[in-house]
Amino acid sequence: MINVRSYHIVAALFQLGNSSRMKNIHILSMKYNRILKLKEAEMNTGFVQIYTGNGKGKTTAAIGLAVRAALAGERVFIGQFIKGMRYSELSLPNYIENIVIEQFGRECFIIRDPETKDLEVARKGLARSREVISSREFGVVILDEIFIAFHYRLVSSMDIRRLMLSKPKEVELVLTGRNAPAEIIREADLVTEMREIKHYYSKGVLAREGIEY
Amino acid sequence: MINVRSYHIVAALFQLGNSSRMKNIHILSMKYNRILKLKEAEMNTGFVQIYTGNGKGKTTAAIGLAVRAALAGERVFIGQFIKGMRYSELSLPNYIENIVIEQFGRECFIIRDPETKDLEVARKGLARSREVISSREFGVVILDEIFIAFHYRLVSSMDIRRLMLSKPKEVELVLTGRNAPAEIIREADLVTEMREIKHYYSKGVLAREGIEY
Repeated sequence: MINVRSYHIVAALFQLGNSSRMKNIHILSMKYNRILKLKEAEMNTGFVQIYTGNGKGKTTAAIGLAVRAALAGERVFIGQFIKGMRYSELSLPNYIENIVIEQFGRECFIIRDPETKDLEVARKGLARSREVISSREFGVVILDEIFIAFHYRLVSSMDIRRLMLSKPKEVELVLTGRNAPAEIIREADLVTEMREIKHYYSKGVLAREGIEY
Repeated sequence: MINVRSYHIVAALFQLGNSSRMKNIHILSMKYNRILKLKEAEMNTGFVQIYTGNGKGKTTAAIGLAVRAALAGERVFIGQFIKGMRYSELSLPNYIENIVIEQFGRECFIIRDPETKDLEVARKGLARSREVISSREFGVVILDEIFIAFHYRLVSSMDIRRLMLSKPKEVELVLTGRNAPAEIIREADLVTEMREIKHYYSKGVLAREGIEY
């Protein structure tokens, strides 16, 4: 029986374009067994992932990643910048106990210029993020909408880089929000852009509980 | 206090580019209260969402969406085409009871030509999907990797269109997988492309439990 890991190794090899001559996964698994062993140490390395872009699914993917990691036994911390409202996901820790969610935003939305209070809350969030990342208590740390906080100049690009640099080797750090700055993308390990191809907002459909929030 | 729904309405209006003259969310909320009421009926309408593209996060976003919907009280069905392996997410129903996951794939990965058995399993998955969608037992139905099944010609574009057409008005249907065909994208309501900007596969990093699966 092929395990999930082998499946993903094959997926990885596909990605590298190496698999065209291969007949099946069994051969692949054998062939790459050696590489696999060499890579063993790296499997425990945490990376910096970014979900950005205008499309739907950035926070949603982060929640999915949190759940997947928690179910695999990791402790997961989700810090939500900007957001201070009651999202459906806030009750997640009631169901899956190794997920912690904290909000680093106010109960209202920033329309144009952020207020002093917004800055204060974001600074506290930043300090809390630093603490959480370096504590090594969490295998996965997700800082949701940190790039929106950056957009409103509540955190600087240097603040984000410092967080990345302070990350212990084994911690996976996930950053989300549209308009991730180029200098951060350059230093991240994995970057996915959620690109909006079609959105029902343009049909006049509004956000629905349980789907968008 | 501003509720999450208002927040998302403002986000929707931003998307439409209508909010530039507005001062704050309170004014917006009042102004669009009337529209909101008119739209009330539509809020209970389910749509067809697609997550496609080469980037990471399609299945992950679908899991996040499932969790969010379940926590908001919806019953959620996840059918995984192609996949028959032990993914971390399979234990999700042990934690959140209104999520059901079934797999419509075999324990091995299709490398080149699918076998008769692959076709059989996919056909059963298709029949099960039809049943689940029309049963109205689930507010959200996710058919994960259905476009990979399409890619391997295990399901046809017509099969997928029939599923979309059979959808009761209130059901949200979510389809994932790279290379969603243009004719399906045309008929979907919301399409997001996960675009790979940077991937650590190219650094030789392999899949890690709890992160990729």
